[in-house]
Order: sequence, then C-alpha cells, then structure tokens
Amino acid sequence: MRVKAERIQNDLENLSRFGGLEGGGISRLAFTSADREARDYLRDSLALQGLGTVQDAMGNMRARRHGTRDLAPVMIGSHLDSVPSGGCYDGAVGIVAALEVIRVLDDLGIETRRPIEVINFSAEESSRFGASTLGSKAMTGHLSQEHLHMYKDKDGVSLYEAMKLFGLNPDGLESVRIQPGDVYAFIEMHIEQGRVLESFGIPLGIVTSIAAPTRIRVFVIGRADHSGATPMDLRADALTAASEIILGVERIASVEAGPHTVGTVGYANAQPGVLNVIPGKVELGIDIRDIDKDSKDLAVRKIISLLEYVGNNRGVKVDYRILADETPVTLSGKIIGALEEAAQALGYPYRLMPSGAGHDAMYMAEVTETGMIFVPSREGISHNVAEYTAVEDIARGAELLLEAVLHLANEE
Amino acid sequence: MRVKAERIQNDLENLSRFGGLEGGGISRLAFTSADREARDYLRDSLALQGLGTVQDAMGNMRARRHGTRDLAPVMIGSHLDSVPSGGCYDGAVGIVAALEVIRVLDDLGIETRRPIEVINFSAEESSRFGASTLGSKAMTGHLSQEHLHMYKDKDGVSLYEAMKLFGLNPDGLESVRIQPGDVYAFIEMHIEQGRVLESFGIPLGIVTSIAAPTRIRVFVIGRADHSGATPMDLRADALTAASEIILGVERIASVEAGPHTVGTVGYANAQPGVLNVIPGKVELGIDIRDIDKDSKDLAVRKIISLLEYVGNNRGVKVDYRILADETPVTLSGKIIGALEEAAQALGYPYRLMPSGAGHDAMYMAEVTETGMIFVPSREGISHNVAEYTAVEDIARGAELLLEAVLHLANEE
Repeated sequence: MRVKAERIQNDLENLSRFGGLEGGGISRLAFTSADREARDYLRDSLALQGLGTVQDAMGNMRARRHGTRDLAPVMIGSHLDSVPSGGCYDGAVGIVAALEVIRVLDDLGIETRRPIEVINFSAEESSRFGASTLGSKAMTGHLSQEHLHMYKDKDGVSLYEAMKLFGLNPDGLESVRIQPGDVYAFIEMHIEQGRVLESFGIPLGIVTSIAAPTRIRVFVIGRADHSGATPMDLRADALTAASEIILGVERIASVEAGPHTVGTVGYANAQPGVLNVIPGKVELGIDIRDIDKDSKDLAVRKIISLLEYVGNNRGVKVDYRILADETPVTLSGKIIGALEEAAQALGYPYRLMPSGAGHDAMYMAEVTETGMIFVPSREGISHNVAEYTAVEDIARGAELLLEAVLHLANEE
Repeated sequence: MRVKAERIQNDLENLSRFGGLEGGGISRLAFTSADREARDYLRDSLALQGLGTVQDAMGNMRARRHGTRDLAPVMIGSHLDSVPSGGCYDGAVGIVAALEVIRVLDDLGIETRRPIEVINFSAEESSRFGASTLGSKAMTGHLSQEHLHMYKDKDGVSLYEAMKLFGLNPDGLESVRIQPGDVYAFIEMHIEQGRVLESFGIPLGIVTSIAAPTRIRVFVIGRADHSGATPMDLRADALTAASEIILGVERIASVEAGPHTVGTVGYANAQPGVLNVIPGKVELGIDIRDIDKDSKDLAVRKIISLLEYVGNNRGVKVDYRILADETPVTLSGKIIGALEEAAQALGYPYRLMPSGAGHDAMYMAEVTETGMIFVPSREGISHNVAEYTAVEDIARGAELLLEAVLHLANEE
C-alpha cells in the first residue's frame, strides 16, 4: 500500500480537535470558529505539500497540484463541516484521503498529465441552515441570492449574514459557478453511514446512485391553554396533532411508499414548551429520501395528505413549506468503471451500491463525470459521536482513490 | 360598589409593563428582572397606603394592615410571576384585588379587629423550575434544601442559585415556615383559567376543591443515526416512540381514567434536533391533574405502564422521574360559607365549582382556613397572551373579597 495509515490517523486526530467534544465526536457547524480551525489545518497541510489554496465566494476551498499539461483537473475531496454532536469521520475521511493522495504522489515523485485538485465543499450538512450541500449547489447554479437570505439558522442568522461574518462574499455568488468541461472528473470518498458494507463484510463500496431528500417544514398551530383547567374535549393541542404526523411519516415511509423510502422527523419544537401549558404551536422538520424519484414523490404526496387530514380532524391549522425537493442521481458509468478496474488491480473486494445519504457528488454529477467510494461505518452509526471507521478501512479507500486518480489524471 | 374599577384597571396596566411583550401578554418568570419590577411596584403601592412590606427568605412578600387587636391576620393575595408568553391576569388579579381591598378600607377609614395581610407568593408557576407554588410550599414545609438544589431552569440554574442571585437567602428556608394558628384565614382571588363561568354566564366562582397535578419527566433514549442511510427497520427513533407516549397520555386522560382527568405533554425536546439526524433522545414533560385522587392515581399507573410498553415494543430505553405528585384539596367549609354569605349580601350570582388548576391556596389550606374566588376567563384561555378578564368582573370579585374579609377580620 502506498498510502500511509499513520498519516491518515494523525490527520483525523488533529481534525477531531476542531469543535471536539468531551468524550469524543465533534460539533463543527458550517461557518463557525470550529469550521475555521479545520479549514486552516487543511490549508496549512496543503501548504506543506507546496500547494496554495484558493477560496471561492462561497468558501469552497480548492488547491491544485499541477499536471504536465494544462488540462481540466481531476478533483477529489469532501467536506469538513459536521452536524451538532456528530462524528469525526463524516466528510473528514474524504478530505484526509485527498490530502494523502497528494502526499503519496509527492513522496513518489509522480507527475500526472492532468492537474489534481483537492476540494473542501462549504456547508455540506443541513444542520445549520436547513439545506444541505450548499457549496456544491453554489458551484452548479442551484443556489440563488434569494436562498442566501431565506436560509436561516436557529438564531435567525441568514446564510448571507453568516457568510459575511465568515469573511466571504455572498454578493459574488455567481462567480462560484463552474461549467461542464472545467473539471475532468470528480471522486468523493465518504463513510457509508449505513450498515450494508459491515453486514456483508466487504471493505469498499463503489456508489452507483445517490438518494435525494425532500424536506418539509411543518407548523402545527393549535391553542395554548392551561393544562389543568382545560378539559380534554375543549383542547386544540398542537403537540398531540404533531405526534399523529410523526407516526404517520414513519408509517408512510415504512410500508406505504417504496422499498428504499426513508422518512424522519428530526425535531418537534413545542411553544411555549413548558409543563403547565398545552402546546399552542409545534414546528416539525420532515426529511424523506429515496433513490427512486417516483417512490419519493408518492411518499411526499401521502405526507401532504396526512397533514391536511390531521389539521381537519383535530381542529388545528397545519401549514407547511417544502424546503428542498431534490432528484436522485445516477453516477458516472465511466468513473464506476475506473473504480472497479482500480479495485480489481489492487485485489480489493468491493460492492456496487446506492447511497442513502446525500453528498456533494450529487450536484457535481451535473457538471462532470462523478463517482464515490464508500468505506464502512461501524454499526451503520453516523451523525452521532459514536460514528467510527477503522483507519485500515480509510487507508484502503484512499489507496483505491489514488489508483483511480492515477488512471484518470493520465488520460488525454 | 366600594372598590374602584379604574384603580384596578390602572394597576393591571402598570403591572403588564413588567415583562410585557409586544402585542400584549407578559413573560415574567420567577426571580427575573421583570419579576423584580412587578414586586417593586407592589411594594411601592403598599407603601402609598402606609404599609411596609416584609420579604421572607423565599421571597414571599407580606404587608400587614394592623387590626385593633393583636390577633392572627386574615391573609389575601396571589402571585406576580407568569409563564413565558403568558397573560396579564393569572396571579395579578389576586394581587390587585388585595391591594384594592386595602385602599377601600383606608378610603372609608374602616378599622378591623384582626390585621389584614397582603401576600405575593414567590414562583407560583412551574415554568421556570419545573415545580409550582414554591412560595407556599416553603411556607408549609413542603420545600427542602434538597429541592432547592434539584430544581433547575432550562439553563441549568438551580432554584438555590436563582434565589441567591435574586438577593434571597436560600439557607434560611426553614425560617419561612408558618404554623397552624399563625394565619386566621386565607382567601385567594384568581381567574378561572377555564370556560365554566363563561359558559354558564355566571360572573363569580366560589371554589370548593382544587385539582392537583402529578408531573412526570420522561427521557426516551434511542439511537441517533443518519436520516438518509438508516433503513426504517434498523432505527431506534426516540421521537416516534415519544409520539406514541404523547398520544397515549391523551387517550388515557380522555377515556381511560376519571371524568375530570386531564393529561398534557407540554414539550418534546429532541436531541440533536436537526433535520438530517434521527432523534436519539427525547425529553417529555407530562402533567396529569384531577380533583379525584383515585382517578389521578389510575391515570398515572396507566401512563407508567404505557412508558414500559413503548420502551419494550420499540427497542428504546424509557426512563422517568415523578417530579411532583400532589393530592387534590378540599377547601374550608367555613370560608366557602363566608364567601356565599358575602355574595348573597351583595346580590351577586355565583357558582360553587372545583378548580382544575393548582394554586398556592392548595398548600395554605394545610395551615389555615382557606378559600378561593374565581372570576371568568374569556374563552377559558390562560397561560397565553390572549388571556383576558373584563375589569368589571375583576372589580366584582374584589368587592366579594372585601365583603368576606370585612366579615372574617372582625371575628374574635
């Protein structure tokens, strides 16, 4: 193996300090000081390899290792931001693997025909602004000035304001876009965030398609009354109505849509939210995903019917807004082939598989040949401090990435 | 009528500024600066009547209008704290009515045999510390040093610390206690917080019994996983489990316990509480009330069985703690009789009725003859900025209070 597991381990340990939590895991939300520290670490590590880092108006970081020819680059990377109380592997392993590829090329004095670019996408997680993959959306024309003002964090800070505070240039959003042909190929290595590889005992996944989310924000508006003095039959309880919706989303995703449909309510924030008041208002966040667009659309239609039913049946008002409605993506046959050939050349067992989680690769697939490598997640746990992937598995994934990059970066 | 509605109106308007919200209502949680401002207003208003105010170690404020004899006083009053986004009437009308009784006695130069005391009980609402009627509990020996440290607000500030910060003396808790005989009688006037008076078109309630709450804090512990990459059948979703509990509490209170049982889940705080993570932990606050102890105990037993069932059935851990388990209280026949006689003397229609909400009168009933007057709540709304009681109704209640106090304070 050309990649060095110790260096990968060292990088992961260093990164886990930025936003690190007592007892393990990290909280490294986009455009926070923890995010800044992780970015500085990446920039400094690339500088040690002689690479300068450029940051676009959206904060996406790109560093180019020159090729012998002035051709479109092969791009590799992932993201450094995390969910709150998240793990140290989601996103970070793809960054560390890309960095390690550069180091190995330098160690071995290998020149490639095409340039190789390392990328760190801004704000991949939806945790802070309620919308995901913001960096790659900006690069592919899926983020508008309107979105920058519409997306807000829990404190009411808009994406626009947060970018300004982070020293970025939200008004220069348009300059972030790339065009087909600008990038020759893109490969993202990521943890699986599921149990498939672990349950089959296979160390590598080559991703064929990516499930996409539809996200709905729901407001249930009832009436806040005294919890002791209001008989059960005179209530308009927003939280019991919300509970019917939560169980309905579970039922629809489990048995009423497609075999791969998943549906989640991530929070149910009740107002005023105290022991002695019937909740007058509840906000719910619903996330529905599928690799099949028709099944997802069916689930969304059923959920919207459910919202109407619960509102009518319980005498509460149910408002909703669709925050995101993305289309599942099929990845590049060319890159899947290149990854399969590389795995075979290295003698690594692998599995072709869909991705249940969304990734920046989803948007990059619109402008370049795009592929993904998965490495196993212990017990499938992700978005959780208990997230874990063995360093040997990460090293194996990085070696596969190196092999595929060497092939692609030497193509005409 | 001897009481002056304009003065009552003026007091209520002044008080509504302390913790006042744009668009109406107040947030005046116990031991906050808004609470302090309201207390200062009461102290200054009493000082204008020549009464000095004494504050005990718990912050209960007492002001004595001397009688011609050194006998145990007749006590009147209520509380100034509120729930978050609450109304301007809950608690405040009882304080304002007591203040108006003093003013009328002074206006008319009436001396009474017994002293009359105005009281403002500290921290009647459970909103801040998760436990209610803390001032009267302290006065009647139901609050220990252990409780002062155990009860915490949402920011983790203990009741003990909050009292210290408010300039009180939590270490002197024992000095707050009063003994049977210390107070001759206690009458609290309060808004009904329900729809009974309004629906019968009767302006006054004389309370016969007070429903008492049992409060349970529940932690549902599942597993936080990625919302996209975790198939429905591999989840341990704490929020769907919590939703079953919420709907179960509603069902038990509605149809499986007594005719007067009410059950409420006031909040369902999910962790980490973001769109793309299956909730790993949910905290619920359950409030169950009844005027009949057996029915309430039955509801509590059924809810605890439900918690166990949901935990087993869904593969999540369900922990719970009973925060409070209070006994419904029958009020003093002597005071009920005095209030009925007073209402008849004044020619006011009234209704004998139970209280669904808890009050400081509940604890005062242990150490003195205790009664309550209810005035109507528009649409039964309370613990809400839309809470409203017409000033004429408040004045009528204050006149009834005056009449009863004149009678009781001249008894031997």
